[in-house]
Amino acid sequence: MSKIRIGIIGYGNVGKGAALAVNGASDMELKAIFTRRDPEKLRNTEELDSSVALLPISSAESMIDDIDVLLLCGGSATDLPEQGPHFAKMFNIVDSYDNHAKIPEYMAAIDEVAKKTTAIISTGWDPGLFSMMRLLSESILPDGSTYTFWGEGVSQGHSDAIRRIEGVKLAAQYTIPVEKAVETVRSGQSPVFLAREKHRRDCFVVTESVADKAEIEKTIKNMPHYFADFDTSVTFIEEDEFITKHNKMPHGGMVLHSGKTCDNSQVMEFSLKLESNPEFTGSIMVTFARAAFRMSKDSIYGAKTVFDVPLTYISEKDRNTLIKELL
Amino acid sequence: MSKIRIGIIGYGNVGKGAALAVNGASDMELKAIFTRRDPEKLRNTEELDSSVALLPISSAESMIDDIDVLLLCGGSATDLPEQGPHFAKMFNIVDSYDNHAKIPEYMAAIDEVAKKTTAIISTGWDPGLFSMMRLLSESILPDGSTYTFWGEGVSQGHSDAIRRIEGVKLAAQYTIPVEKAVETVRSGQSPVFLAREKHRRDCFVVTESVADKAEIEKTIKNMPHYFADFDTSVTFIEEDEFITKHNKMPHGGMVLHSGKTCDNSQVMEFSLKLESNPEFTGSIMVTFARAAFRMSKDSIYGAKTVFDVPLTYISEKDRNTLIKELL
Repeated sequence: MSKIRIGIIGYGNVGKGAALAVNGASDMELKAIFTRRDPEKLRNTEELDSSVALLPISSAESMIDDIDVLLLCGGSATDLPEQGPHFAKMFNIVDSYDNHAKIPEYMAAIDEVAKKTTAIISTGWDPGLFSMMRLLSESILPDGSTYTFWGEGVSQGHSDAIRRIEGVKLAAQYTIPVEKAVETVRSGQSPVFLAREKHRRDCFVVTESVADKAEIEKTIKNMPHYFADFDTSVTFIEEDEFITKHNKMPHGGMVLHSGKTCDNSQVMEFSLKLESNPEFTGSIMVTFARAAFRMSKDSIYGAKTVFDVPLTYISEKDRNTLIKELL
Repeated sequence: MSKIRIGIIGYGNVGKGAALAVNGASDMELKAIFTRRDPEKLRNTEELDSSVALLPISSAESMIDDIDVLLLCGGSATDLPEQGPHFAKMFNIVDSYDNHAKIPEYMAAIDEVAKKTTAIISTGWDPGLFSMMRLLSESILPDGSTYTFWGEGVSQGHSDAIRRIEGVKLAAQYTIPVEKAVETVRSGQSPVFLAREKHRRDCFVVTESVADKAEIEKTIKNMPHYFADFDTSVTFIEEDEFITKHNKMPHGGMVLHSGKTCDNSQVMEFSLKLESNPEFTGSIMVTFARAAFRMSKDSIYGAKTVFDVPLTYISEKDRNTLIKELL
């Protein structure tokens, strides 16, 4: 059987994670990477099979007959709102658009153009797997409450916010669930939490040689939305230590649902502990690329989400094997 | 909008749990319970709304125009192999058939007759939710190992096996995951376990007034398949204590997947902590009854499993609301 031919737009951390996952899937092959950087430089710095085309993003259209599914691995702020509707017109696509508030709007823009293509948007783990767990939990136990905890892990947005402060050279912000809140829900209770009761924020900061540390700490802790509503710790460290200890991108989190049937407590929990957030996200995108390919073969077109995909579509195994081995 | 009309075949623990869940769903109504017992006696002992018909199982056919989905809540050993193919001919059905080894055979028998009906088989949590997690995990992280742990909870089959021993009056068997094994997998390792390394079995036994306790303990611990391969403890207690402490049906368990991307460990975990196993199973069946009803409206007929059902089909909420609120 011929393999599913994958193209990747954007070769940052998630794009690299997706490339890894395509190489690990026996039913797929990586045909092309489209990048904003100089493709030739990329060839020299990355270990890429010579069969993979390295091209500028503007060349994607020319490979329309060579690619079954295009993975859009750019950012949700500026890349995807432009690339999603542009490429969904001609390719089956999968993305990990994660601006929760704007998903309906983004989805409508994709659906408008995906008349003969399948576009699975907002895959990844939140939105994505966590969304599936929220839906499953509240459908099965409607008399209950669902809680999403993030971490322990590095939040890119919060780290960026610290880096924008004058005098800051490097920064990593860890979001950490408050153990007491997690245990309360696990015990079957359904409390209402303040933001600071659910998560705390630990920041590791390297300053420029001349910097007012006290002022930086105050600025971080009082930053509205990002830190002011949380218990936040700020630790200043040296650059060497930062590079040794804080150069990874671990993350994780959990969806906890505490429900009741009659007088009985019923608790459902889904959790992730990831050493590499972008590699995991890339792996999920590749799994749903398989679904996008198969759904397009079945003429199921338009903008879809993880809620629309039966699990038989995502596995390398055929349905009978799945039923026999995994049901 | 008119409500989804539900019938229940078999009013044991799972049937009662399903009835509870139907009453908790605003888009459903319970039309009838079909029982092997004397329906009039049931009316007197159970708190049932007078609008619910209580009839012998043989009367189910007469209500074919009054019921949208029939929940088969009987046992997998003898009830379902007969009832499944019989009722799937005329009704949309949902069951929790849980004889893993025989699912393909059972499914084929149902598929053969479900030409104009939708039959979602083997719902519940294992098979069911746990199967979905196994499929999701191994699809996303194919370089990894999946482990299913059951418990802490009462295993009906093992409790029955003890009760069949001469001199035993009452028995409850708790299956308990070995914490060390769970922690090993959670830490990102993928070992191969012996049965006794994954679970231990705690038995609480009430004997008849004259009984050889030493002999009973020996018989339990050496019982092949059930206990011989596990570390098993046997505690003899008085009937009063048994009734106070061991009359509930708690259960739970977890699906743990320990995978790798490149050199990074990625761990996915799904767990359940249930005070009432049958009420939770009934709740899942009712959730998939909604899917069976909608799939039949969409002319998606035949024997289906949880692998075939997009999550949009199981929620009371419409797709746009799900995308807005839960994605």
